Amino acid sequence: MATLKDIAKKTGVTATTVSRVINNRGYVSDKTRKKVYAAMKEMNYQPNELARALSKQYTNTIGVIVPHIDHPFFTKLISNLEAAAAARKYKIILCNSNEQPEKEAEYLDICVSNRVAGIVLCSKYVNAEKFGALNIPIVNFEREDDAAAITIQCDNYQGGRIAAEHLIACGCKNLLHFGGVIGKEMPADRRANGFTDVCNTAGIKSRVVQCDELINASMNYHSYIEQGIKENLQVDGIFASSDLIAAEIIQVCTAMDIQIPERLKLVGFDDVLISTITTPTITTIHQPMKEMSEMSIDYIHKSLMGELVPNNIILPVKLMKRNST
Amino acid sequence: MATLKDIAKKTGVTATTVSRVINNRGYVSDKTRKKVYAAMKEMNYQPNELARALSKQYTNTIGVIVPHIDHPFFTKLISNLEAAAAARKYKIILCNSNEQPEKEAEYLDICVSNRVAGIVLCSKYVNAEKFGALNIPIVNFEREDDAAAITIQCDNYQGGRIAAEHLIACGCKNLLHFGGVIGKEMPADRRANGFTDVCNTAGIKSRVVQCDELINASMNYHSYIEQGIKENLQVDGIFASSDLIAAEIIQVCTAMDIQIPERLKLVGFDDVLISTITTPTITTIHQPMKEMSEMSIDYIHKSLMGELVPNNIILPVKLMKRNST
Repeated sequence: MATLKDIAKKTGVTATTVSRVINNRGYVSDKTRKKVYAAMKEMNYQPNELARALSKQYTNTIGVIVPHIDHPFFTKLISNLEAAAAARKYKIILCNSNEQPEKEAEYLDICVSNRVAGIVLCSKYVNAEKFGALNIPIVNFEREDDAAAITIQCDNYQGGRIAAEHLIACGCKNLLHFGGVIGKEMPADRRANGFTDVCNTAGIKSRVVQCDELINASMNYHSYIEQGIKENLQVDGIFASSDLIAAEIIQVCTAMDIQIPERLKLVGFDDVLISTITTPTITTIHQPMKEMSEMSIDYIHKSLMGELVPNNIILPVKLMKRNST
Repeated sequence: MATLKDIAKKTGVTATTVSRVINNRGYVSDKTRKKVYAAMKEMNYQPNELARALSKQYTNTIGVIVPHIDHPFFTKLISNLEAAAAARKYKIILCNSNEQPEKEAEYLDICVSNRVAGIVLCSKYVNAEKFGALNIPIVNFEREDDAAAITIQCDNYQGGRIAAEHLIACGCKNLLHFGGVIGKEMPADRRANGFTDVCNTAGIKSRVVQCDELINASMNYHSYIEQGIKENLQVDGIFASSDLIAAEIIQVCTAMDIQIPERLKLVGFDDVLISTITTPTITTIHQPMKEMSEMSIDYIHKSLMGELVPNNIILPVKLMKRNST
């Protein structure tokens, strides 16, 4: 691989001059600049980002740690984070913790050893405080507040309210919410609170059913959905805490011969690809993932530059009306 | 951040001794080793992978360039590549080219500048030959052969044959294949060849319809599917070249009041998450993505170690019977 010195030798200028051209710093005549560029092209010169990173002590990479790459929510998030990072000349190092605390901790160490510019943490177990002393900006995505990190969430409570209000406006009298994991507190639990508050105020019957950890990790919710519906046979409106659960509710209802939206109306959460490819398509609560991703990268960048950034950000959600209601 | 020298100062040994402990090289007494470990823990020492990478001239990262992170096929691939890489202590740098040739070329340059250990290239435009001289192992994933890279594909031709054989065994007499992009040659086109060959031999009527580039990039195939079915109203069996297209075929057929599998049988391709969450679930051709991903990482690793690796690998596919047939 051609080095800076090779270019200098070929063009007959000093290595310092070549470096000036590459880094666009200091005075270089147009003639020399053109000569250096031509040699760089001819010799297929590739700048060594490693050497640059070593001098500034961090790379232009951002570590993204998620619990499941293939969960539709995280897929969409990764795609948005990659786009936001690329626009700021950062690259994404992708880490899948598979919901394993020890793998999450290991990935955090790997990110630090590789001198990432920042970390977006969507996995649930490790406390970012451990990393506070390292001065690496950390964004918490849909995790609980953490003094050592910037926490970015969508307005989960408002999302639950909007879902319940929409189902009630559609004429539903008996509502059910599938959401949350037994014994595990998550920001997403606030969807149930918003949902329940609206139902209580409106005098509409409602129930919340949670699943266990194993079902959540497997992404196969069939038995959980079936049991929830069988125990609430009068249900005429369901709010699911993800579009993935909503898609599986369509499967279970079809098998039980319950027509959607005729006999039962359904609202999902996230607004990911699957909500548009199921039959019927899923009415859902849109999370502003593009904006949340852009803010994540932006605040990591600002934090590195020493600018003041917020600790806690909550973004609004909205209803996307489709064919399941 | 604590450095090797800080640890040496704290423990009263030389930096060389600390380096020996960290790299597990040369003789160090048990007592000293324990003392160094204790100081590393207390001072939260994180090894500097950048410095190590600079000395060996490449990092333990693998660049993965895909055309669409959110296409279900690439989502599953990324997830599998991340797992295979983690098992070999590599990290994934994820790049989304959005099917833009200039972005693909830019990402390749970025990967080279950042001294990746290897590249998995799933995007279609750049010829890997440009990078042959750089001695960075490149794996071509579902792209055409390329002398400068290791090409890994599934047996697309066999997949097309299996799909046609299954539809014929289900009693279909009039088959249609949705697959391929007009004016663009891809390995996936061989699915149509296998499909057509089986139909011709069996004397079964068949037709292949391709979509244009814009539809393919948008991932919304509705108008293309609708037109294909309207021009072939006698069709009783469809083979779609992805599970995503198959999911949208279910939507279009439901709107046209064509029951699946009663009036029309459907086979997809890929075996990704959506084939299990649609209603009905989709019978599909399973691509061995786990094995293909493991081989990609394995061959990059072997290639770096100077071992001989194959140019071209084709892996078998198989039928996954679900409810759409």
